[in-house]
Amino acid sequence: MIVHLKTTIGHDEAKRLAQTHQAILTHNTQWHTGFILTLSSKVKELPADLTQYAEDYVVLDTDIQFASRSYQDQKAEVRIAEDLVIGGEDNSTWLMTGPCSVESKAQIETIAALCKTHDVRIIRGGCYKPRTSPYSFQGLGLEGLQILREVADANDLKVITEVRDASHVQDVIEHADIIQIGAKAMYDHGILRACGNQSKPVLLKRGFNSTLQEFVQAAEFILSLGNPNVILCERGIRTFEKATRFTLDLCGVSWLKEHCNLPIVVDPSHAIGYRFGVADLSRASFAMGIDGLLIECHPNPSEAKSDAAQQINQEMFSELAASLRKMAPGIGRRLK
Amino acid sequence: MIVHLKTTIGHDEAKRLAQTHQAILTHNTQWHTGFILTLSSKVKELPADLTQYAEDYVVLDTDIQFASRSYQDQKAEVRIAEDLVIGGEDNSTWLMTGPCSVESKAQIETIAALCKTHDVRIIRGGCYKPRTSPYSFQGLGLEGLQILREVADANDLKVITEVRDASHVQDVIEHADIIQIGAKAMYDHGILRACGNQSKPVLLKRGFNSTLQEFVQAAEFILSLGNPNVILCERGIRTFEKATRFTLDLCGVSWLKEHCNLPIVVDPSHAIGYRFGVADLSRASFAMGIDGLLIECHPNPSEAKSDAAQQINQEMFSELAASLRKMAPGIGRRLK
Amino acid sequence: MIVHLKTTIGHDEAKRLAQTHQAILTHNTQWHTGFILTLSSKVKELPADLTQYAEDYVVLDTDIQFASRSYQDQKAEVRIAEDLVIGGEDNSTWLMTGPCSVESKAQIETIAALCKTHDVRIIRGGCYKPRTSPYSFQGLGLEGLQILREVADANDLKVITEVRDASHVQDVIEHADIIQIGAKAMYDHGILRACGNQSKPVLLKRGFNSTLQEFVQAAEFILSLGNPNVILCERGIRTFEKATRFTLDLCGVSWLKEHCNLPIVVDPSHAIGYRFGVADLSRASFAMGIDGLLIECHPNPSEAKSDAAQQINQEMFSELAASLRKMAPGIGRRLK
Amino acid sequence: MIVHLKTTIGHDEAKRLAQTHQAILTHNTQWHTGFILTLSSKVKELPADLTQYAEDYVVLDTDIQFASRSYQDQKAEVRIAEDLVIGGEDNSTWLMTGPCSVESKAQIETIAALCKTHDVRIIRGGCYKPRTSPYSFQGLGLEGLQILREVADANDLKVITEVRDASHVQDVIEHADIIQIGAKAMYDHGILRACGNQSKPVLLKRGFNSTLQEFVQAAEFILSLGNPNVILCERGIRTFEKATRFTLDLCGVSWLKEHCNLPIVVDPSHAIGYRFGVADLSRASFAMGIDGLLIECHPNPSEAKSDAAQQINQEMFSELAASLRKMAPGIGRRLK
Repeated sequence: MIVHLKTTIGHDEAKRLAQTHQAILTHNTQWHTGFILTLSSKVKELPADLTQYAEDYVVLDTDIQFASRSYQDQKAEVRIAEDLVIGGEDNSTWLMTGPCSVESKAQIETIAALCKTHDVRIIRGGCYKPRTSPYSFQGLGLEGLQILREVADANDLKVITEVRDASHVQDVIEHADIIQIGAKAMYDHGILRACGNQSKPVLLKRGFNSTLQEFVQAAEFILSLGNPNVILCERGIRTFEKATRFTLDLCGVSWLKEHCNLPIVVDPSHAIGYRFGVADLSRASFAMGIDGLLIECHPNPSEAKSDAAQQINQEMFSELAASLRKMAPGIGRRLK
Repeated sequence: MIVHLKTTIGHDEAKRLAQTHQAILTHNTQWHTGFILTLSSKVKELPADLTQYAEDYVVLDTDIQFASRSYQDQKAEVRIAEDLVIGGEDNSTWLMTGPCSVESKAQIETIAALCKTHDVRIIRGGCYKPRTSPYSFQGLGLEGLQILREVADANDLKVITEVRDASHVQDVIEHADIIQIGAKAMYDHGILRACGNQSKPVLLKRGFNSTLQEFVQAAEFILSLGNPNVILCERGIRTFEKATRFTLDLCGVSWLKEHCNLPIVVDPSHAIGYRFGVADLSRASFAMGIDGLLIECHPNPSEAKSDAAQQINQEMFSELAASLRKMAPGIGRRLK
Repeated sequence: MIVHLKTTIGHDEAKRLAQTHQAILTHNTQWHTGFILTLSSKVKELPADLTQYAEDYVVLDTDIQFASRSYQDQKAEVRIAEDLVIGGEDNSTWLMTGPCSVESKAQIETIAALCKTHDVRIIRGGCYKPRTSPYSFQGLGLEGLQILREVADANDLKVITEVRDASHVQDVIEHADIIQIGAKAMYDHGILRACGNQSKPVLLKRGFNSTLQEFVQAAEFILSLGNPNVILCERGIRTFEKATRFTLDLCGVSWLKEHCNLPIVVDPSHAIGYRFGVADLSRASFAMGIDGLLIECHPNPSEAKSDAAQQINQEMFSELAASLRKMAPGIGRRLK
Repeated sequence: MIVHLKTTIGHDEAKRLAQTHQAILTHNTQWHTGFILTLSSKVKELPADLTQYAEDYVVLDTDIQFASRSYQDQKAEVRIAEDLVIGGEDNSTWLMTGPCSVESKAQIETIAALCKTHDVRIIRGGCYKPRTSPYSFQGLGLEGLQILREVADANDLKVITEVRDASHVQDVIEHADIIQIGAKAMYDHGILRACGNQSKPVLLKRGFNSTLQEFVQAAEFILSLGNPNVILCERGIRTFEKATRFTLDLCGVSWLKEHCNLPIVVDPSHAIGYRFGVADLSRASFAMGIDGLLIECHPNPSEAKSDAAQQINQEMFSELAASLRKMAPGIGRRLK
């Protein structure tokens, strides 16, 4: 249950009420000008002693509360820059591209130039790549973050990059425009808390083992701390099928569109894990009416230090971008 | 390994060679004018005693042989009628619609009229519905087949309907234009054999827990018996995610497009199991460049005797068909 | 809902009542001396017009009805021979062994001798092996059934063998003492009907893609036709883990023990798919307090025509049997 | 490839060699008295320039290297106290028990008394419980750690407790005798690094959607930093089956026993998620010949603040412990 307190109620009183009811105390004017209490969704009736403090309240079915269409039906807008808003109701889909791992400044400059050619505004690249084996490339770390920031600024691009564990979350928050929480870190409450306690936009990737319910509940951690700027990203789930690396869950995207108010981005590259399907899956995702597409592109995929099989090259990216532009009017979207 | 025997070799000699090499003997002029031997894909070199009989041969990586792009690169054409060919290279996508279960003649006539309105040429409906519980509706059986046939003939439509076990396969073969092998029957060799030993087109649904490799190998049973008219249908796989009924595997569709030469149809209705996602998933599948879409539509979904939650009504179907037509040019396809 | 009709009610009247209420009509004195009507489990109150005919009735939570502990709490006994009863409450666990495929009479005789050495009463062997690729060994068919029957009779053994599709179900019913319904055939209603319409014991294998609910509902098809002799067999489910062939679901066995009244057998060989785990998993399953163990054993596993990797040889079987006997008293079971 | 450097080679030279070969430098006398270099398992031949420095080397199939039976065949011993060694070859299985969450000192004292009654030496309890919903109990944190430590010391017990993200890993390392890495934290390299850089024993839980290969590779992170005291814990994987909470993967335990040299513990409580199967699954796991059992027990399960459904009470624990003791001789194990 989400309770909007009367605007006359100050922070101390709100805090006291939160403690009494084991509620989470939130404040964000996008939702309500006063303070907000969130109780467990199991609470179905407004507690009697809250009646005098409550302006209004919403009873929710599950612990998807702030993110629920039942709380706020229109899709949230996440503002990255004055003219770069992901989500909302204006039918824009934003392209984001870049390599799996930041490997060198030259590499990032090449991709930045590609972005400029295709009017792509957001560049991606991973700096922390602690992969499943200790015996492979683990990323450039802070040096990578600095490269991204420098090249992006020089080209008027925005940076999205991934945090993988709580030990480097502050560095990512500092350098990124959009903080990407990796699929393997979706349950990391050290990260979720750090992201909730600041206001930069967060792109939360669905854990490949996570139900849709758990996925949006992880977003609720960030939202309930007062940061409304959360974007959901579907990137494939783990199933019995191993011919492709993961299974892109577009049924899940439908479910998210129906039940949640957060913007949705799809990452087809990690889902399939092979170059051959990236273009088709990008078009399929675009046709779903999503808010963004995150596509891995590398100047020279065969020499990539990670995920070599799934990254497309610049030529393939150019063809893909052109085909998406061509299909945009027919599906009533603008590609940005 | 597929071995094309010289056209001078007759049936008896071909049969003898097949027995000697534990090979499958096939004859279909779409592939080769002479007889064909198929050996296990583990055989990587032409057996010495076959050299004098072989016109040519193809070594294959796996037991996906006739269906492999390495054997025949261009996509197969499955002819339903003179002017109704599924597959091939002309960029057509065929709509097929109808209720989950045939319930009455009036119901099928309503859907037939809907088909005529939207130039849909193929009508579907299930007659054998032996569902997981014995305590629910089990379908009209032969009576349903007769209703479908009669209404389709009166409206110049083609019929696709499902066989569920070997005990009624001959009835389905007799009444259908396209024999649909249900997801739960994909491994049923009684059915696969019966379908391979005749020449009507077969739409093979992927078992919901079948790997892509097993799926295409099931198609190979039909192909290797000499019936080249096989269409593959992705309809969702079973995963840990239960917010939707199944998980539509479009990564799998990419894989099939890349590796197999058979036409591909997608059934989004069974995949998601809820009305709300059917339109979006249909558009996504269409954007993949597939050969057909199988969509469940019922005159009055809330009263349907099976799968009530996932069938769309006529109005929703009309909107969906219109939106698909609108997006067709942008993706370079023709909707039929 | 299961309704026990008064014993004064004859077949014609029972049939009329069944039709009126879309109920399944069953007759088996193990459950009730009169006729039985089974309505959907959604029916929670006895229909008014049935009150005068009903002796008593049981409301069930789900469409697991005859198999439910809420209907009949004590575990069912399935009688194979006078002194060979699987299930019930006497804490016996029956060993069943034999090769994956029947390959020759000599092979089966070797295994029969092994059975005699270890007081094993039930021999297994597959005759219909339509595997996922058409390009591999497909079984000896009827000839295999005859070999099994002949060797078993000569050695006072009972035969369990598998039916795979409805086209050969009558042959299996005729030759087997226990009809095994294969994992890929669990949803085959042609087979389920045929097995329900006769009285020989049936061992139903869980489909590797089937939920426990669906599994027991498939058993309900057989039970509701009046054959109470159904044994459930867990043999591994398909998951994301591919280091082993399937994942043995002993949590599922716990669930079945808790909720169902049917005897339970475990097949560890198909679950793991590799020899190395068969003994440990057999001991683990035995410690669960199950009613039988189905273990694949081949005189010469490396030359087996199917499933070569998972079959143990005679020496391994002897060691395993000895270790099971040793642990039996500590877990309060008798190994038979 | 693992390369044992000659013992004459000092730290500086070893470090230089590691950098040249992008190898991981390890030092632990349990494996080798000199320094150790670990190269990617893709390296199959000893690099020429290393020949003069290498005492010997082992080529490994995959990036499971230190943990592989091919590197060290006998099972590792993890010493918790002088007389408490988990693993090795002496056929002991250690019981560990306690509540899901530490809720109060009284609660932990009750469980400590239960441990004393049954000669259980290791007590468990979770202090950081950041669960999937922000709207539920999140654990006592540091206060919980202090309670555990105090009560354990007063009762001569050892403490196992869980770390969930890198922000509190040092607190857990300080207070625990065995650091448990939770299933959702298995990929957290902030935690893995911290655990590798100290020498206390670590119990690594398998991620519920992690393959066995990934699971052991996560252990390799800790091992390769020089901490050999790693215990693997199977606790159920996520599958399509939802009648139980997870699916205990005993096929996976067989695989680990066959391929890895690390001690193995099973947690049946989290796997099934319901009280009813805990005893049977404990006995099944014990019969597999594992090194430890982790069982959730709460003085009053119905009032537990987390995982209420799966915790057994003291009476059930006593019965279970007795039954395990009874079966121990028959399976050749000692229960401790």
